[in-house]
Amino acid sequence: MRHIVLVLLSFLCFQKTYSQHDFSNDVDPLIGSMGEGNIFIGPTLPFGMVKPGPDCSLNSNSGYVAPSKDSSMFGISHTHVSGTGGGPKYGNILVCPQLSSNLSSNYKIYRQNEAVSVGYYSTELENKNILLELTATNSVAFHKYKFKNSEKSFVRFDLNHHLGKENSNESQYLVGSELEILSQTELCGYTRVRGGWNQGETYTVFFYAVFDVPFDSVYNGSTTLKFDYNSSKNTVVDGIAAFGFKNNAEVKLKVAISYNSSAKAKQNLVRELPEWNFGQVVLDARKKWSDLLGRIEIDESDLNKRKIFYTTLYHSCLIPSDRTGENPVFESHNAYYDDFYAIWDTYRTVFPLLTIITPIRVTGMINSLLDSYKIYGFLPDASSGNCIGLTQGGTNADVVIADAFIKDIKGIDYNLALKAMMDGSENDPGYFHRFLGRGGVNEYNNNGYVSYNHERHCTRTVEYALCDYSIYKVAKGLGKNSIADKYLQRSSNWKNIWRDTVINNAKGFIWPKTIDGKWVDSTYQTYWSDVTYKFEKEKRIFTPNSFGWGWDDVFYEGNSNQYSLHIMHDVPALIEKCGGALSFENRLDTFFAKKYYDVTNEPCFFTPVLYHFIGKPNKSNLIIDQILNSKFTHQKDGIPGNDDSGAMSSWFAFHAMGLYPNAGQNYYLLTSPKYKSIEIKLDNGNKFIVNTKNFDAKNKYVKKVYLNGKIFNSTSITHQEIMKGGALTFEMSATETDWGIIKNR
Amino acid sequence: MRHIVLVLLSFLCFQKTYSQHDFSNDVDPLIGSMGEGNIFIGPTLPFGMVKPGPDCSLNSNSGYVAPSKDSSMFGISHTHVSGTGGGPKYGNILVCPQLSSNLSSNYKIYRQNEAVSVGYYSTELENKNILLELTATNSVAFHKYKFKNSEKSFVRFDLNHHLGKENSNESQYLVGSELEILSQTELCGYTRVRGGWNQGETYTVFFYAVFDVPFDSVYNGSTTLKFDYNSSKNTVVDGIAAFGFKNNAEVKLKVAISYNSSAKAKQNLVRELPEWNFGQVVLDARKKWSDLLGRIEIDESDLNKRKIFYTTLYHSCLIPSDRTGENPVFESHNAYYDDFYAIWDTYRTVFPLLTIITPIRVTGMINSLLDSYKIYGFLPDASSGNCIGLTQGGTNADVVIADAFIKDIKGIDYNLALKAMMDGSENDPGYFHRFLGRGGVNEYNNNGYVSYNHERHCTRTVEYALCDYSIYKVAKGLGKNSIADKYLQRSSNWKNIWRDTVINNAKGFIWPKTIDGKWVDSTYQTYWSDVTYKFEKEKRIFTPNSFGWGWDDVFYEGNSNQYSLHIMHDVPALIEKCGGALSFENRLDTFFAKKYYDVTNEPCFFTPVLYHFIGKPNKSNLIIDQILNSKFTHQKDGIPGNDDSGAMSSWFAFHAMGLYPNAGQNYYLLTSPKYKSIEIKLDNGNKFIVNTKNFDAKNKYVKKVYLNGKIFNSTSITHQEIMKGGALTFEMSATETDWGIIKNR
Repeated sequence: MRHIVLVLLSFLCFQKTYSQHDFSNDVDPLIGSMGEGNIFIGPTLPFGMVKPGPDCSLNSNSGYVAPSKDSSMFGISHTHVSGTGGGPKYGNILVCPQLSSNLSSNYKIYRQNEAVSVGYYSTELENKNILLELTATNSVAFHKYKFKNSEKSFVRFDLNHHLGKENSNESQYLVGSELEILSQTELCGYTRVRGGWNQGETYTVFFYAVFDVPFDSVYNGSTTLKFDYNSSKNTVVDGIAAFGFKNNAEVKLKVAISYNSSAKAKQNLVRELPEWNFGQVVLDARKKWSDLLGRIEIDESDLNKRKIFYTTLYHSCLIPSDRTGENPVFESHNAYYDDFYAIWDTYRTVFPLLTIITPIRVTGMINSLLDSYKIYGFLPDASSGNCIGLTQGGTNADVVIADAFIKDIKGIDYNLALKAMMDGSENDPGYFHRFLGRGGVNEYNNNGYVSYNHERHCTRTVEYALCDYSIYKVAKGLGKNSIADKYLQRSSNWKNIWRDTVINNAKGFIWPKTIDGKWVDSTYQTYWSDVTYKFEKEKRIFTPNSFGWGWDDVFYEGNSNQYSLHIMHDVPALIEKCGGALSFENRLDTFFAKKYYDVTNEPCFFTPVLYHFIGKPNKSNLIIDQILNSKFTHQKDGIPGNDDSGAMSSWFAFHAMGLYPNAGQNYYLLTSPKYKSIEIKLDNGNKFIVNTKNFDAKNKYVKKVYLNGKIFNSTSITHQEIMKGGALTFEMSATETDWGIIKNR
Repeated sequence: MRHIVLVLLSFLCFQKTYSQHDFSNDVDPLIGSMGEGNIFIGPTLPFGMVKPGPDCSLNSNSGYVAPSKDSSMFGISHTHVSGTGGGPKYGNILVCPQLSSNLSSNYKIYRQNEAVSVGYYSTELENKNILLELTATNSVAFHKYKFKNSEKSFVRFDLNHHLGKENSNESQYLVGSELEILSQTELCGYTRVRGGWNQGETYTVFFYAVFDVPFDSVYNGSTTLKFDYNSSKNTVVDGIAAFGFKNNAEVKLKVAISYNSSAKAKQNLVRELPEWNFGQVVLDARKKWSDLLGRIEIDESDLNKRKIFYTTLYHSCLIPSDRTGENPVFESHNAYYDDFYAIWDTYRTVFPLLTIITPIRVTGMINSLLDSYKIYGFLPDASSGNCIGLTQGGTNADVVIADAFIKDIKGIDYNLALKAMMDGSENDPGYFHRFLGRGGVNEYNNNGYVSYNHERHCTRTVEYALCDYSIYKVAKGLGKNSIADKYLQRSSNWKNIWRDTVINNAKGFIWPKTIDGKWVDSTYQTYWSDVTYKFEKEKRIFTPNSFGWGWDDVFYEGNSNQYSLHIMHDVPALIEKCGGALSFENRLDTFFAKKYYDVTNEPCFFTPVLYHFIGKPNKSNLIIDQILNSKFTHQKDGIPGNDDSGAMSSWFAFHAMGLYPNAGQNYYLLTSPKYKSIEIKLDNGNKFIVNTKNFDAKNKYVKKVYLNGKIFNSTSITHQEIMKGGALTFEMSATETDWGIIKNR
């Protein structure tokens, strides 16, 4: 690992420039890279456009596979998403240093001694005969190769490469590619791909690449060609070529990308990265991350515990990708974000977290969503590859907008936003229901629920009701009372699929219903068949635990037991429907005891804090404590389930801070903090500090809470109270307390 | 006009190569260029990809405005459609020779002495100080400029230019552009535009251009820059630049386009047009047209009459554009056609005409439509700018497929086609009903008609019934009887909106109906407001003559009087609904006498031949004769209404040949031919000749018809009978005859 030490040493020469604590040291990008986390591990800036990293398997969503499983790789590709499930997306513009001129698209080389830190990736290849290092600016990847024991040194470009080739449901397909030799050091070209996770339309990733030393040969096809600049200049080759350098070469390579053109990629390079100082680029990237991560300072000396926390913030800022100025689809002066993946995953905790640490991003993202509405008629639930879709639950951008509105996020035309939300609630997307809008919404608006005629009908009804509540909130806030009333009314629609039946002592369930108003007692359920690698269907008796997974199930990523507690916007009504507080408490106890709780998917995110609503917040704390301690670690498999663009991570982050947001509403529920002190540097210049008195793992019960030294008589705090700055102090106890017996708002 | 004579003389040197009759001389591309025809007049190949021509107004669909109205132009742009209405599309990559370095995008120069012939366009500019000549291969425009009395000569590129800037409903919007200087003779770049007629997604037109002489200066912005090759090489400038040449320069310029990349454009140029022989390119273009047009030879010595006929064939082969190998959206080994504009316009006569003169194009177009189905889930009704939509009536590609199936068009997977048609008939496109599929089809399938809840509900019900009949035809032919039965049943759905009321002696009308089954007696009607240049709405009593025009009317491009006779697929049932043959005849008489007939729109195309179905085919002939003689001329305004991608023209062509197809069915109705003899060279090598005995304008009545010398006892002939080859002879008479009293099939 000598090279890593050298690299880190070389950074020190510059480190005097940045004298503050480097929070990027508190991040381990490998957390979540094993198991189901699907975290992107390569160097990138916050919301960075270029995401260079190793592609080790075509079936990996992040491209990466941790070496214990598979230590080979195709090379470094330049576009990725983080934490996602479904069919892989991106993996464009593959570049690989190698000892031979092998051009096969199946060619993989072996790696060892990976070193991964914020803004930096390195690995040794081909029996340690190549050292590959990597860093990045916003749109330019900076590669550094050092060959040894090589007769000749090669760098292969494969523009036909992309992830997801072998996934039959959501495959990516190559539409075209070109590689053009501009000079003895410069290349440009593009790859054009369609499909992938969101079954997206065709996108084109253009690039411009420049070596610091001239190559002396070009290998294209089976023939080895001696390089002749005059004949090779402006030569266009299809897809794949290798470039030869002398033996034991040291080669630096900058690869700039653009979604507009190679010339734009070159402009990006000239603007962002005119120099060849690799170490400085690493430090600049770390500085940008440190500035963002440092918005929250925790008092914790255990580096592993620090890493768990800061890595969750890091994960929450990997995507969507900031591609402002790079929208090839329509013109706008607003910020442009792609890779919302998906808002159904991120509305609960990622957007609320960004609202606290970087609200300007929330402004930009919402304006970008509104731009899409202006063009497509719908607010996206997701987008990738410059194409909107898929839609998982409802039009959950509604919740994001309501959350921003109620938390005073500036720079958004909320009247336009209200129109966008209303249009999404009225216009049935018909056949395109998986891509935008609310599938079955004509039924929902006419009959008060989505019937069994439509896929995911129970999830949809529940989510649409929440979205309608969000519309109510914004309309009300804008003084549009008749609109507000209409949507408040609709926000009760979940009650129309609430079946008043008692199963295992639990009263009432969200239940599938036909268009004629009959409850459905047996239903089809989809599941993966490992052998065929395809979805299959089976008819089963419907029960609260019938597992919903797929697009055409009753529920999406959840079951009736879980969704029947997922009424975030009207918990008091839910409690009533469940037979009152005592019955509700028993139901929650059973839910967690019988492990109906699923930590890996978002519909359960809110369930642990439901005890708050019946005056038992310390029961919430015990459950949360258990989940956090058992499911989140500093190891590579330290994230339970897909991270879903930081959804899982930000869920952790809020609970670690002792605050949990109810997206679309103005408060955070107070839960026991996981660090002794947390200082939030707010965007308005104020500081909000969460302190803990008697901080100790054994002191699991909150006894009292103080705001600025005075007893705070609530188990929730408003966003505006936080924005004023101040100190919230949790006094902890090893034994049960009476905290929270007061009614919640 | 001296230059024109010179040009034509210079062609003669090559003309010995092509000794046959040059049918391209029988075409006048200017027919239809004035009035509402909206014909593209520039040089292009059959279904050619590049369509260079003068852009004279941003509001002109073809770019062109005949000089009597406006003799200025912006320059030559390279992409156009022909005969279309609605918001203009394309008009990309503008190039203009000029005497100054003026770079304004509003800059227009004056033209005079235009000469327009097949494969050739020329005009004099700037007081005859510039001669501009133009020809084209499939994807390369060849420009030739001769400057005189010029201190310096300039060629301006404006990549920000596009048509339709001023149309508020269906504007095109610039998304981005780049112009790159590759060398002292070479340029490349692109323009990226969205919107236009089909409110289409973003498309990119790339180009590669090469001058035959090096420019010596580049003008970009307000500064005049002396050209320095080393500093200007690979310079990228935004949008607009002018290139300077010496005084009185003679400059040739080739502009190749591609929808994939500039490099692909260059490849297109290298493959199609490596030489600089302008005259040869003109001759090659004319040869290609002559070969196609010559598939039908008419016996007519009056050049003007020849031009009327051959120009209709020419118009029918301008679009869709053959962009095989140029699909930037998805990969396929099939032919790729864009600019279906729209099939609702062209299914009746254009596709049937292509089936006769160039069936391989029909194979290619249908396979291209099926490719779109595979990607988008729907067969397009229209496409432009690599984007499918809009949908005007029904899923009328169904009729095209049925027509091809029944006429034995080879190379099509009709099982796939049937699936595509059925999917289109079952999947409601919801909010996207203007773009694909059948809007309101859930209602149509459940209730048997599209109700007043949906726009264009009467047109839709009528067209959907026809489309269902087409599905029936294909299913039946494939032996899928239960499917066939289902769709035959649905093909009667027009009867569900047939109101049995008598108005002005006519019995029964297609009439708007609510979802509850009530007839609608007053309805909103849209109309253009000239002042605001916008659609407006007004509530009126609904009558058979209530004019339908817009997207949200009861009828599209027609009214109840017209659509009530537009039941092409079941005329016997229509006659019965109208009260029997006599009542039907009276109704037709009134229809034509009172000028309810609208020659300018497609819903009336079939009406004149309806007399055939009641045994009065000579009445059809008299009506058709009158329309042909009064509405179609060899003048610039010689086409009534938008040509609609050759719809109007091919309607003429069929009647001129004495044959009229009923699209989706296997026969042609016999009408009196307009030329003494017509020889059709069929694709199978056979010849089918239509002769006329006693051919004279005064002999308007068919007396007898002979097939291969034997009495032919029908007023229609099957496609298979024609394909066998042979001679069909019409014996004409100046007085009424008893021809056709036999019942039609």
